[in-house]
Amino acid sequence: MKNVYDSQTFFDSYQKMRKEVVNANNLIENPIIKKLMPNFSGKKILDLGCGDGNMDMFFVQNGADKVVAIDISKNMIEEAKQKNADKKIDYMVLEMEKIGSIQEKFDFVYSSLAFHYIQDFNKLLFDINKLLNPSGILLFSQESPLLTAIVFYDEKQQKTIELNGKTYYLLSDYENETKRENVWNDNIVTKYHRTYSTIVNNLIQNGFEIELFQDSYADEKAIKLKEKYKYEKDRPMFLFVKARKKKDLFDNNSAKLPKGQSQT
Amino acid sequence: MKNVYDSQTFFDSYQKMRKEVVNANNLIENPIIKKLMPNFSGKKILDLGCGDGNMDMFFVQNGADKVVAIDISKNMIEEAKQKNADKKIDYMVLEMEKIGSIQEKFDFVYSSLAFHYIQDFNKLLFDINKLLNPSGILLFSQESPLLTAIVFYDEKQQKTIELNGKTYYLLSDYENETKRENVWNDNIVTKYHRTYSTIVNNLIQNGFEIELFQDSYADEKAIKLKEKYKYEKDRPMFLFVKARKKKDLFDNNSAKLPKGQSQT
Repeated sequence: MKNVYDSQTFFDSYQKMRKEVVNANNLIENPIIKKLMPNFSGKKILDLGCGDGNMDMFFVQNGADKVVAIDISKNMIEEAKQKNADKKIDYMVLEMEKIGSIQEKFDFVYSSLAFHYIQDFNKLLFDINKLLNPSGILLFSQESPLLTAIVFYDEKQQKTIELNGKTYYLLSDYENETKRENVWNDNIVTKYHRTYSTIVNNLIQNGFEIELFQDSYADEKAIKLKEKYKYEKDRPMFLFVKARKKKDLFDNNSAKLPKGQSQT
Repeated sequence: MKNVYDSQTFFDSYQKMRKEVVNANNLIENPIIKKLMPNFSGKKILDLGCGDGNMDMFFVQNGADKVVAIDISKNMIEEAKQKNADKKIDYMVLEMEKIGSIQEKFDFVYSSLAFHYIQDFNKLLFDINKLLNPSGILLFSQESPLLTAIVFYDEKQQKTIELNGKTYYLLSDYENETKRENVWNDNIVTKYHRTYSTIVNNLIQNGFEIELFQDSYADEKAIKLKEKYKYEKDRPMFLFVKARKKKDLFDNNSAKLPKGQSQT
């Protein structure tokens, strides 16, 4: 996976953006994902794409027993270790494609706005199934399929249009589930578009029971601070998914057989 | 529910359209929903919004034990009784909002392109749960949330736009889950827009386990007959959902209690 967060120009711009109070992460994504949290007190958590570790500190401050937090970016993990260090948090530089190498099991796998960078979503869910304890929870946010659908042909790709005094988003290539490259802070950011239907089907295929799908919305406070967030009603920016591990895809032993029976 | 199919001008135009071989129902919707069929041999089927009964005849010709087929339109039920009569099929004029009055139980509830006419989807699924036997299957198609989202302000509401040689669909009001009125064959057709997330959540809340979400697609044959179907890749017209009854919402008796225990 290309890692744009280790490009210095990108990282600097990104840092600047994240420090602003008024951004979509702080005003829209974070309040919603916090409302969707399972009870994680006393639990072991895996954070996929942890960034600066802000949420990992939130987890331990709110009762988590242990957090393993990974990110592909060395810059991010360095910052997390400085800003959000705690003896209950293990920060690791690790690509999400390689979580199959982790030997521990977790009660709760969390990921904020990172899955749209991953090409093979099906494989990712397969790996997460392995890492979860029975009935463990997966909670993730990602960019909405309605946002990632459009293909960027150039830097100035038009995404909206005004018609009769109303703003419309342009929708195309919804069923082309391939990569999307767009320019952000002078760097090419590569994302992978997937439909709602594919997200549903991949979860089911990988042993998850869906508990909730949630599109993002902007509350009055957010719209007051940034008027354009009113367009969340027209096309939400983020999708949140909460799912429970229902089937163990890796259960090759006889643990599930009734007492007194052997596997033959 | 307003029933546009009993307006004579609408019914005549509709009849004409359905008789054309080259339409989206025949070339796109019907081939896909047939591929998603559960095994219904020897089963009891309920068809919600049966239209001219074409699929009900298909069910009995392929081994269904009994079919109850309802439609809100007297015109449609009359036509079904003439064109697709069989002793195994019971045709009834009945609004989908009133299926709670049906006393039988079914193994398979089927509905093609009718659910987008129903205002209260949650209530509909609640009623279907009651009508299904344990582990019974619900298979339905409806207009895609990507298609129903846009609000019609007038008869000539623009739905697509050409930009740099590419066709884009206009997306807005995706999170406004209210009615949509548009003009079709000189009649106002009222539909209800729901998001993918709401469809997922309502199924779960009403005791269903989702087996598959499927967006529509056009195969080469369809595109050869009508070139515009190539735009299915940009914005599919239909959504198909297959789900299994997992929980009985109406189980008030002691049927599930272990032997020897009484309900106290």
